Amino acid sequence: MGFGFWDLTKGFVSLVGAGPGDPELWTVRAAKRIAAADLVLYDALVDADALRRMTRAQCFCVGKRAGRASVKQETIDKLMIRAARQGKRVVRLKGGDPFVFGRGAEEAIALAVAGVSFEIVPGVTTAVAAPELAGIPVTHRGLASGFLVLSGHTGDRLDETLRSVAANSVTIVVMMGLSARAEIASRLIALGWSPETPAAIVCAAATPDQWTWTGVLKELSAATPPMGLAGVLVVGDVIRVGERLAGTGSIPHPLASEGVTPADVEADVEVRLSGERER
Amino acid sequence: MGFGFWDLTKGFVSLVGAGPGDPELWTVRAAKRIAAADLVLYDALVDADALRRMTRAQCFCVGKRAGRASVKQETIDKLMIRAARQGKRVVRLKGGDPFVFGRGAEEAIALAVAGVSFEIVPGVTTAVAAPELAGIPVTHRGLASGFLVLSGHTGDRLDETLRSVAANSVTIVVMMGLSARAEIASRLIALGWSPETPAAIVCAAATPDQWTWTGVLKELSAATPPMGLAGVLVVGDVIRVGERLAGTGSIPHPLASEGVTPADVEADVEVRLSGERER
Repeated sequence: MGFGFWDLTKGFVSLVGAGPGDPELWTVRAAKRIAAADLVLYDALVDADALRRMTRAQCFCVGKRAGRASVKQETIDKLMIRAARQGKRVVRLKGGDPFVFGRGAEEAIALAVAGVSFEIVPGVTTAVAAPELAGIPVTHRGLASGFLVLSGHTGDRLDETLRSVAANSVTIVVMMGLSARAEIASRLIALGWSPETPAAIVCAAATPDQWTWTGVLKELSAATPPMGLAGVLVVGDVIRVGERLAGTGSIPHPLASEGVTPADVEADVEVRLSGERER
Repeated sequence: MGFGFWDLTKGFVSLVGAGPGDPELWTVRAAKRIAAADLVLYDALVDADALRRMTRAQCFCVGKRAGRASVKQETIDKLMIRAARQGKRVVRLKGGDPFVFGRGAEEAIALAVAGVSFEIVPGVTTAVAAPELAGIPVTHRGLASGFLVLSGHTGDRLDETLRSVAANSVTIVVMMGLSARAEIASRLIALGWSPETPAAIVCAAATPDQWTWTGVLKELSAATPPMGLAGVLVVGDVIRVGERLAGTGSIPHPLASEGVTPADVEADVEVRLSGERER
């Protein structure tokens, strides 16, 4: 299929999700759009070397990098609009999925208001893929029948969002949650979550630096992820599935099983699951 | 990078997410694994024609298709394990992401318990991409600071999961939610959600049959999606962003704006957003 709707000889913008890290997790469409682009405006978490190998486009990092502020949203919008009006094929390459936090829809609205043709190319969202690459499913029969994704960067809204979900109900995934982890853990416990709820941190998912910690909610603030990496927090019983898988050596980046004993895992996951499978 | 960890000369299984529909939304790694496979076991929503063009592997549909029951989970597990032990490269190709519902983690556990090498290849989850391809972001500043994903197929757990989140707090995405839409709408209203909360249905996302309805929660049961398509429900104010984008003609599959007037959209989205952008 594809978006045959657009006249590809004219300037247009593709808002493209780059997935969690590894360029092999770009979609086929993302790779095609990057290869055909004249201009790529990419976020800090995108693999810039892989990007430059893929395209002869001009490539500019507009995200926040060590020691440098990110380019203003308004400036990014103007760059995209101007280039498209000059007839350029623009790729706006964003980490994860463009419509999961990260202002992708705001960029889409800015383009629409300016009358610039654009398309949205969904990506692999880090909210799901980061836990997954550590062996943790966001949902699992008997352990979690849903998952809530929120951002650790939402300021005043963070507490409101944490309050919106009943204690120990669904899996919680907090994106950009590392710096707020102590606050999030103490707020959840204050809101009635068990301090013994399994918790995990996955940093730099789908990169050679991937780093995982697992433990329980009350220990989350004491975890010491490597400096300078982005990461997600996961809270909920599904983490025990990750520990079960890591215990078999099947997951390339084994989880450190702190705070939960093999016997817990045996009792909570293995028995349930084999029981369900063999029914 | 990639999973150089595995010895690719031996049998192994890749649990691969196929994304929402269009094969261009497969990841690059998914395409590579499919091309190199000896055996592909695929779900019903996967594009079988594209699959067969991509690979010389034996391809079997193990999902539910019109008039035929799906293959039992235990049988799928046995097929994967047997083929891997015979030295085959097996791709288990699942719609969306393998760890968002759909028993991917159960399959991973079965493989781990059997001592079969495997990897997980995350995919574009339909939970995010289906709304997105209709122009609806699951999060948006000022409208939703988080999103809850659940399944309409969880039986007794459905009501419990709907109860887990406060009325009109975050965006709700219900996968496989079409047949339960009347029940879900009435339960949410009973739980205190405003009957006027924007709601949407997106069927067959990223396929030529993509079909979108928007309205409000109290009208959800009256929507009449085409028979035989899979779909997701979305509930929350973010739907107004989709209507805003559809109003500009920028989204290839325009939303039918029922139940929300252009003036509502103007007031609720445009003003807020341009205000925030220009700050």
